[in-house]
Amino acid sequence: MQFQPILEDINLRIADLPKEGAIATYIPELAKVNPDHFGMSLLCLDNRQYSVADAQIKFSIQSIAKVLSLTMAIKIMGDAVWQRVDVEPSGDPFNSLVQLEYENGIPRNPLINAGAIVISDILVGELNNPKREFLEFVRSISGLPAIDYDQKVAASEKAFGFRNAALANFLKSFGNLNNPVEKVLDFYFHLCSLAMTCEELSRTFLMFANHGCAIHSGESVLSVSQVKRLNALMQTCGFYDEAGEFSFRVGLPGKSGVGGGIVAIHPQKYSVAVWSPRLNPKGNSFLGMKALEMLTDITGQSIF
Amino acid sequence: MQFQPILEDINLRIADLPKEGAIATYIPELAKVNPDHFGMSLLCLDNRQYSVADAQIKFSIQSIAKVLSLTMAIKIMGDAVWQRVDVEPSGDPFNSLVQLEYENGIPRNPLINAGAIVISDILVGELNNPKREFLEFVRSISGLPAIDYDQKVAASEKAFGFRNAALANFLKSFGNLNNPVEKVLDFYFHLCSLAMTCEELSRTFLMFANHGCAIHSGESVLSVSQVKRLNALMQTCGFYDEAGEFSFRVGLPGKSGVGGGIVAIHPQKYSVAVWSPRLNPKGNSFLGMKALEMLTDITGQSIF
Amino acid sequence: MQFQPILEDINLRIADLPKEGAIATYIPELAKVNPDHFGMSLLCLDNRQYSVADAQIKFSIQSIAKVLSLTMAIKIMGDAVWQRVDVEPSGDPFNSLVQLEYENGIPRNPLINAGAIVISDILVGELNNPKREFLEFVRSISGLPAIDYDQKVAASEKAFGFRNAALANFLKSFGNLNNPVEKVLDFYFHLCSLAMTCEELSRTFLMFANHGCAIHSGESVLSVSQVKRLNALMQTCGFYDEAGEFSFRVGLPGKSGVGGGIVAIHPQKYSVAVWSPRLNPKGNSFLGMKALEMLTDITGQSIF
Amino acid sequence: MQFQPILEDINLRIADLPKEGAIATYIPELAKVNPDHFGMSLLCLDNRQYSVADAQIKFSIQSIAKVLSLTMAIKIMGDAVWQRVDVEPSGDPFNSLVQLEYENGIPRNPLINAGAIVISDILVGELNNPKREFLEFVRSISGLPAIDYDQKVAASEKAFGFRNAALANFLKSFGNLNNPVEKVLDFYFHLCSLAMTCEELSRTFLMFANHGCAIHSGESVLSVSQVKRLNALMQTCGFYDEAGEFSFRVGLPGKSGVGGGIVAIHPQKYSVAVWSPRLNPKGNSFLGMKALEMLTDITGQSIF
Repeated sequence: MQFQPILEDINLRIADLPKEGAIATYIPELAKVNPDHFGMSLLCLDNRQYSVADAQIKFSIQSIAKVLSLTMAIKIMGDAVWQRVDVEPSGDPFNSLVQLEYENGIPRNPLINAGAIVISDILVGELNNPKREFLEFVRSISGLPAIDYDQKVAASEKAFGFRNAALANFLKSFGNLNNPVEKVLDFYFHLCSLAMTCEELSRTFLMFANHGCAIHSGESVLSVSQVKRLNALMQTCGFYDEAGEFSFRVGLPGKSGVGGGIVAIHPQKYSVAVWSPRLNPKGNSFLGMKALEMLTDITGQSIF
Repeated sequence: MQFQPILEDINLRIADLPKEGAIATYIPELAKVNPDHFGMSLLCLDNRQYSVADAQIKFSIQSIAKVLSLTMAIKIMGDAVWQRVDVEPSGDPFNSLVQLEYENGIPRNPLINAGAIVISDILVGELNNPKREFLEFVRSISGLPAIDYDQKVAASEKAFGFRNAALANFLKSFGNLNNPVEKVLDFYFHLCSLAMTCEELSRTFLMFANHGCAIHSGESVLSVSQVKRLNALMQTCGFYDEAGEFSFRVGLPGKSGVGGGIVAIHPQKYSVAVWSPRLNPKGNSFLGMKALEMLTDITGQSIF
Repeated sequence: MQFQPILEDINLRIADLPKEGAIATYIPELAKVNPDHFGMSLLCLDNRQYSVADAQIKFSIQSIAKVLSLTMAIKIMGDAVWQRVDVEPSGDPFNSLVQLEYENGIPRNPLINAGAIVISDILVGELNNPKREFLEFVRSISGLPAIDYDQKVAASEKAFGFRNAALANFLKSFGNLNNPVEKVLDFYFHLCSLAMTCEELSRTFLMFANHGCAIHSGESVLSVSQVKRLNALMQTCGFYDEAGEFSFRVGLPGKSGVGGGIVAIHPQKYSVAVWSPRLNPKGNSFLGMKALEMLTDITGQSIF
Repeated sequence: MQFQPILEDINLRIADLPKEGAIATYIPELAKVNPDHFGMSLLCLDNRQYSVADAQIKFSIQSIAKVLSLTMAIKIMGDAVWQRVDVEPSGDPFNSLVQLEYENGIPRNPLINAGAIVISDILVGELNNPKREFLEFVRSISGLPAIDYDQKVAASEKAFGFRNAALANFLKSFGNLNNPVEKVLDFYFHLCSLAMTCEELSRTFLMFANHGCAIHSGESVLSVSQVKRLNALMQTCGFYDEAGEFSFRVGLPGKSGVGGGIVAIHPQKYSVAVWSPRLNPKGNSFLGMKALEMLTDITGQSIF
């Protein structure tokens, strides 16, 4: 399929849309971003990459990184991960404490904050140098040694991360956090600070379209069965309280972040990343959602 | 693919599993069923049907019918349906009133009871003879004129349907029910009483694997885009509070009912129906879930 | 104490306050009331009655009647009542279904709608002619044979009572309603339609200040212990989600209704009724709350 | 009234009751207490004190101290306190985070953990040496210079106080905590560790029965109006999710703690303290509740 003209068409149509939504401001570093960036990049299994607009500008991938830490935890622990976190959609805003209380400290899924903090606890417990080893893991699956944490963002997350500190302490009170709260949060705030361009993000996630294999090395990161399950999880839980809407309109598994990035996967076909910092009321990129809906509309392809 | 030996293998393995779970007893008619039935039938787009065990015994499809009433409502009203019901997973037990209250009478999705009652209200408002016309619709999309309501089940639902009466009155109090409560519930209880065999159920749902076209007539019931969206909805909302688990383990869109039936769709490939009345604690068929997990494991095929 | 000048002072000060709040409009009959009425009447144990302004105009006492049906149920059944309803404050808007679901159909207390419907079910089950016998009971404890239902209000409640119908069906689904939903609701809508003047209302409630004895007849309606408990219940549960505020500011047990009436009790001293139809956001009479706060401020007397 | 024989009668009857309930074990120091202690002490406005059994053994007053910190905050700030905490019963378990989220970080009342942490924040902000000055305040209102923190309990609270740390961080995320989380929690854990005997506890709380005046010094700690409001607050919010039950059965304002202590007030008459470490399922002293119910039953006196 000719993706370059399709992406260029999308870029033009996006430019005509009103600039709705506001950027995330809950941490000062995120509030500094120009809200009117737009970038998009699609990477096929044949290694051809198609990009438009700001696809080479770095942004904070935020919650998108939760898929990567989960991937690393599954690689290390396998199914034992699921004893500490469930796989159901949350049906509530992304940082709600309510369901956690009703469900006795077992987060609904690993892609909401509570679940990602439990996954962070697993990695902190398993790794000697969690931050360094996780970064190496992300570099190895993407083949991109330049990917790094944004230390300013990590520090800003930490300085204003009271709600995440509440979640971590709450999990600890239920016995679902083995390591010290501070250590787990330090790791968690770092992973959320990962910075990537759309091109880097689509490349990092291509393994989810490729049966779990990193394309540049041929290495099998996850088994076929594991990657199918991760894709299913992104499909049902990847968009806070808007997973149904994304599934309904776009029809691909994916994950969004409050930095305005979204990555989506067409299994056995491609990965695609889009970035636009203005968020809709549910915390997902307003134009990013639109751009991906256009993509599956124009191509007529979705997993359904 | 050779589905007949695969289904026979599944049938043998299912027979070895412990008989866990209990049948639904909230209405007396459902409690009369022999809990140890097991049937399965898979229908491909080439019209070949593969069946094992009790695939030709009728059972009450219950909530599975919600997909059919939604299909009819979309055929009539198009996207206007979505003004009265959302498309998000509920993250709560299937008959909860809680979310309805927090969300001002807009049900989370059309596959939970509250949402299906709103869809029933739409059909009651649009049709001259709702029960007869809906039955004709189901017969026409399946090509099976023998499909009918089970009047005993419908009467039993009505006699014990206080929770659904609560939901309907609650929706009415929010202004999201236009017709009289009794009339809407009478229609709703009838649609839930539809009786089908596994062979009939897979045949009725084949259109969801076939771009929205009824295979026996070639008639386009829904557009390609509409059927993709309905499949996405089944994927995220088809299994009460276990949609994530089903998506995670089976990886196909589907819908279950408390009668013990489950139907699932592999777009562009097949539809499959399974029936085993014993339910797990979340209200889905215990062995039905297992059988479908075996199917996608053995075939190595899912939408992810 | 010289109550007449105190009430006249309150009446003057109330007249100076802004006309905040709106009247209840959820049933058309209530919406017809002139929102600017204000009446107040205080009745001492020595049978002296002090009144100002519109104290002799009838209004719909609405939820205040729940105390009277509870009184009758306790007189008939004694402590057996408490097997079907709890005595805790609800901490939620007055007609919420949420807590009912979490607590398996046992209403938090008999003064919220769900609890009052359960009490109605008790009376419907115990009485031969519930509506007539309840009315006779109210007339007998007050010594006021002219008290009556307002049939227009009762009919209006019924025509728009979908939320109460939801509650009744929900209670029935939990097995906490023995009689047919329609019969219980008919009784409930009638008791809520009772019409009284402030003078009649204070007279009807004087028994709660008088050790359970009707002052005009000397008859002991409830035991000393029973009336203390009913007063305690009014204290903690009589004002929907504002019981704490009323207790904090006024310091007397009482009960309010959406018709704008409030009755309060100073045990061993007096009963006092006030009426002003404009409601605050929590559904209690805006000026009625103020007037009673002035009363305990000026007299320096509360139960605390 | 002859209280000594009444208390001795209660002591005998309590001894005959089954030893139901378990002691609080959520912090190791509390778990070390002999569960079968029972003590009771009543102090009248004429300064006569009546005691039985273990009335002179120290125990951890835990949440009862929340009334004292609130008293100090009101003495310093007056009504400004109520901008940061509400006065409504919580209708939920004592440490729930749910209502806090629904109400945007404004705790339901100052006697639940979240509210007491906000009050702690107020005191930490207003005092130069919060722990020392609060202790001096408690000593001054009671006239008992020997009252002190139990440092072991405070340390144990801190080591296992993850849920309170969650609450404090959550409040901070809503902007309802001005000082550093660690500093506020250190103060909060200390105030909960206050140790008193029943005799000391009744003496400390006598001011609430005495128009706000410390009896030993004649000093007016709170105004008459302020103390009435605090008593009202204890009435509606002093017993976690059992405030209604206590009000219903005992009919006095009071406050309980998970150490098994309860203090209650009969305005213008007496204060009474009881201690028995075994707790009922709602976290209040099982026999303490019984003993106070006996007291108001035998004396025939309550505020209602």
